[in-house]
Order: sequence, then C-alpha cells, then structure tokens
Amino acid sequence: MKLYDLELSGNCYKIRLFLNLIQQPVELVQVNVLKGEQKTPEFTAINPRAQIPALQDGDFGLGDSHAILVYLAEKFARDDWYPTEPETRARIQFWLSISANEMARGLADARLVKLFGAGLDYERATQTAATSLTLLEHHLQNHNWLVGDGPTIADLAVFPYVALAGDAHIDLNPYPAVRAWITRIYDLPNFLSMPGQIAAEQTV
Amino acid sequence: MKLYDLELSGNCYKIRLFLNLIQQPVELVQVNVLKGEQKTPEFTAINPRAQIPALQDGDFGLGDSHAILVYLAEKFARDDWYPTEPETRARIQFWLSISANEMARGLADARLVKLFGAGLDYERATQTAATSLTLLEHHLQNHNWLVGDGPTIADLAVFPYVALAGDAHIDLNPYPAVRAWITRIYDLPNFLSMPGQIAAEQTV
Repeated sequence: MKLYDLELSGNCYKIRLFLNLIQQPVELVQVNVLKGEQKTPEFTAINPRAQIPALQDGDFGLGDSHAILVYLAEKFARDDWYPTEPETRARIQFWLSISANEMARGLADARLVKLFGAGLDYERATQTAATSLTLLEHHLQNHNWLVGDGPTIADLAVFPYVALAGDAHIDLNPYPAVRAWITRIYDLPNFLSMPGQIAAEQTV
Repeated sequence: MKLYDLELSGNCYKIRLFLNLIQQPVELVQVNVLKGEQKTPEFTAINPRAQIPALQDGDFGLGDSHAILVYLAEKFARDDWYPTEPETRARIQFWLSISANEMARGLADARLVKLFGAGLDYERATQTAATSLTLLEHHLQNHNWLVGDGPTIADLAVFPYVALAGDAHIDLNPYPAVRAWITRIYDLPNFLSMPGQIAAEQTV
C-alpha cells in the first residue's frame, strides 16, 4: 500500500496518523506540490482531483482524506473506528462533512495563508474557524469523543487542523474542552505527531 | 419522521429527492432562515450546526445533508443506494467530500450570490465551480453514474447544485456529459423536481 504524501499537509497527516494507530504499514511517496507533481497524468490516474493525499492499494487508487479514512477503516478497523449502526455512521458523516466544509474553509485556509502565503481571505477564514471551534467546544463539553464512547475516524478527520491552529495564528485558549480532547488524542496508543501541532503543555 | 426543510435549499432538496426516490414518507417542517428559526434552542438541539436540513426520526436528531443521506440509506436502501464494499463506500465518500467542499464553495456559493445577494466572492466561486464541473465532466465521459453501475447517494449529493447552475448564472453547455447525467437522474422512477433546475430540453 502506497500513500502519496506531503509531511506538512494536515490532510495527509490524517492518513499517516490512522495507519500508525492501527499499526498498518504503508510506503510513503513524497509528492512535491510546488513542482505540480499532483497534476501529472500518473497522479491524476489515481486521484482525478489532483490533490494529495492519494492511496494506492493493489490496483485500487483513491483520493480525498475522508474517502481514504473510510476505505482503511472499512478494510482494517471497522468495529473500533467506524461502527456500523446507521445512527453512528450518520454522526460520523456529520463530522466528516464539517471537516470537508467548515474546517477546510476555516482553520485549513487560515493556515494556508499564514504558513504558505496563499491568496485567500484570512478574515473570513478566521470567522469560519471560530464558528467551528465553538461548535466543537460545545460538543466536547459533554462528550470525550466526537461520536460514541471512543475515538472514531470522525476525530481523526477533525483533529489535524485544530491541533495545527498555531500555524494559522488562531488561539485555542478560549476552547478548553477542545484542548482536553487534543490531549486525549495525543495519549492514544501509537499516536504519531506532526510538525506544527500545539505542544502538549498547551493542551492542559 | 420530520424533515426541517426550505424549498429553495439545494441541501434540503437532496433529502426530499432521496425520500421520494425510495418512497419513504416524511413530514416537512418549513424553517424560515431569514427569521433565524435555525438558530433557536429547539432547532440547535437537533442540529448544533444551526443549519437546514435537519432530520428528526423518533428521538434521533441529525443535521447535514450528507449525514442524513447516509442515515436514510443505511436504514432504508443500503443495497441499492449505498453498497457496502469498502471500495464502493470509499468512492461514494470521495464524492460526498467533493460535495461538502468544492460544490459548496463553488456552485452553491455562486448561487447564494446571484439568487440571495450573499456577500461572497463570486469570481472565486465560479473558478471553483469550473474546476469541479470539469472533474465531473471527465468522470461522466466514461461512466453513467458517479460510483458503480447505478445511482447512489453520491449522485444525489452532487446533483442538486449542478442542476441549479442556472440560478448561479453558470452555463452547463461546455459540459455535455454532465447534462446527459442530469437527464438520467431526471428519468429515475419517482424523481422529484425543484424550482430553478435547468429545463429537461437543456440537458440534451
């Protein structure tokens, strides 16, 4: 199994983290997005969206971090990370959609501006980030995990860009329940870190 | 089962369409978003994201159009609309993510500007719309449906804002395979239409 990867991408990190948590080996293939390697015919044959991450498993190729989480969970870790009850699946999808929409438009876009100089509307991104962090904070005031009694792929989808808020110059101090949840994820067996994540001492 | 609904919302329409296609009855509850009815404590108890659509099924409440599609498909129509193979689930998630991200930022935001005067960047929205319509066109040049050999919830997630492109002042003429796919959806048994969809004669 090959993961087309970039170390500083929070979307790629979702997959590296999950594979490490479930202890599945993967070959990492670095993609130089500044050189446009994600737009080559070889790459778009795997992911027509021309974005990292992408996964190649035998002759099955797939793009999109959430789709890859679903694939790996269905294949290797369904009972723990992607339980099959309709209500649970639906609640997980709720957070996958939040991740693909508000988290991408908010925390991830704000990080693209501050870390890579992307020409996006930082003000609007921080407003969206605040709305989604408030939603998350309210939820985590009464729950340890986003769905059910343990971590699922919903947590892994939402977690990276939240823990990378410092890169986006967004302060997590107003969100203590979010910081406590980050600590719980840091404490998972076989957790894997990423450059730029808020330090463990900032989470408490 | 109650659907908290707004007739002109493409996200609500995804659910109305799916319920009609699978012939499941639902009680429609109109939500006046201009009056902020989606922000009341009663509503946010069902959907903390404070957005339509939301579904109430017994004591289970849920927001997000994609999450609701997943819930209804798991409950009523898994074999036809949401097949369980890991590869199929992953490919469906790929399009649900496209819908939650590029389709929302592109076609849906452009429609919000032109139909409701939203203060969003129309130029950027049309660029994103063009990218996602090109992705869709390339895929549909070789496939009748987004995933597999028949319609799935992936098609229902992506379809509404594409068929509403006219509201966004975006021309579908450069995308003949997309227009042929719209026709196939219009031709499904128990199809339900929505105001603003491109006319059937424009799809051929």
